Amino acid sequence: MARQQRAIRTRARIIAAAGECFSESGYRATRVADVAERAGAALGTLLFHFPAKTDIANAVIEQQHRIVMEAATAVDEMNSPSGIQDIIVVSAKLANLISTNPVVRAGLRLSTESVEDLGISSAQPYLDWTRQCVQLLEKARAAGELAEGIDLEHFAEVINSAFTGTQFMSSAVSGSSDLPERLARLWPILFSQVVKADCTSESVQRLLDDHSTLIDAETPAEEEAASAIESGTAEAE
Amino acid sequence: MARQQRAIRTRARIIAAAGECFSESGYRATRVADVAERAGAALGTLLFHFPAKTDIANAVIEQQHRIVMEAATAVDEMNSPSGIQDIIVVSAKLANLISTNPVVRAGLRLSTESVEDLGISSAQPYLDWTRQCVQLLEKARAAGELAEGIDLEHFAEVINSAFTGTQFMSSAVSGSSDLPERLARLWPILFSQVVKADCTSESVQRLLDDHSTLIDAETPAEEEAASAIESGTAEAE
Repeated sequence: MARQQRAIRTRARIIAAAGECFSESGYRATRVADVAERAGAALGTLLFHFPAKTDIANAVIEQQHRIVMEAATAVDEMNSPSGIQDIIVVSAKLANLISTNPVVRAGLRLSTESVEDLGISSAQPYLDWTRQCVQLLEKARAAGELAEGIDLEHFAEVINSAFTGTQFMSSAVSGSSDLPERLARLWPILFSQVVKADCTSESVQRLLDDHSTLIDAETPAEEEAASAIESGTAEAE
Repeated sequence: MARQQRAIRTRARIIAAAGECFSESGYRATRVADVAERAGAALGTLLFHFPAKTDIANAVIEQQHRIVMEAATAVDEMNSPSGIQDIIVVSAKLANLISTNPVVRAGLRLSTESVEDLGISSAQPYLDWTRQCVQLLEKARAAGELAEGIDLEHFAEVINSAFTGTQFMSSAVSGSSDLPERLARLWPILFSQVVKADCTSESVQRLLDDHSTLIDAETPAEEEAASAIESGTAEAE
């Protein structure tokens, strides 16, 4: 079991290091040897786990997707009465992940700028998030939070576009550190007329403050590695 | 003069070809030889005009900036009574340029994804556009179009972020072809509460329809080349 534990831990370390390298320099400027060095792993070890650079990048994207989807699911499990509040809380969690977690930042960067290299669709993340957002808007509609006649799909697209652009602008201007402030200004403007829920600057700011520190910035792969090691040790005993 | 005219025309042809290559494949995947081939120019000729790949890319970005700023200035010269209408019309012109002009598309792509390679600031375009937008909001405020207490700088940032995200999403999902429709859905939501001007779906759609076909998709460099040739010919006569 010890060998398997070590392998899991090494794999997690490589993904974490790759997240740092890709988020700092992008896909093409990052060399496989840079990732190995950052991970403190031999190049041969890295190539055993990930035969090609595209394999590392796809593992980073996969992990980023898992992390953000877990954050979205955690919001769902809060069982709040408000779909609009859920959207704002998801945005706060994403903002926090983007500013604290290199794997998340790298995953976003890879999915926008290295699409051709990685053979992935640049449209898919937008479509996934729109579907997620439509679900929350359905909850909002059921709770009586939406004005009449709103097309949920179109409104979800506007919400996603506005979040995406805010994230890009914040990343370019402040390295994402001012993203929560920008969201606190965005949501009251975007929701002011179409939403009947409490959506003043103050209430949005409070939601962002309350929920931006809930996230454990540790990556799931690290947690998995740790728990695999624990259960492995348990079995070995 | 004939040699100079030919040089101007060749330079314009190289920039146009580079716009196509960079917008299709991005900076790193585009080889200098690809641009020369697309331009129908010898590699030596290209290197005479642009000694390095970064020179070509920076010329594309410079031309893109000139094209979009000319479009913004043209709106200014319309002398409309409404700052809000001006913002919507500028967005229509940009949408049209993005979908019809490869140099504009390439410039936007290069300024977001190849920042490290080109030694440019990814923040600058956002800051420039925010300043432009603040000016139009000042006009809107003077015309009594804004609700009380709006911070113009913050509102301009929200407007720019929302446009940027809409453009990214439209590019990913439809290759930018649905950008006008997305803008027609965005502006009424974004402006509904904070703006006292006419900003219904119908009025915004009308503005977008009226102003999205006003732009000559020909690049200024080509026009310049043509007019330089004409004036050259005139001088030669």
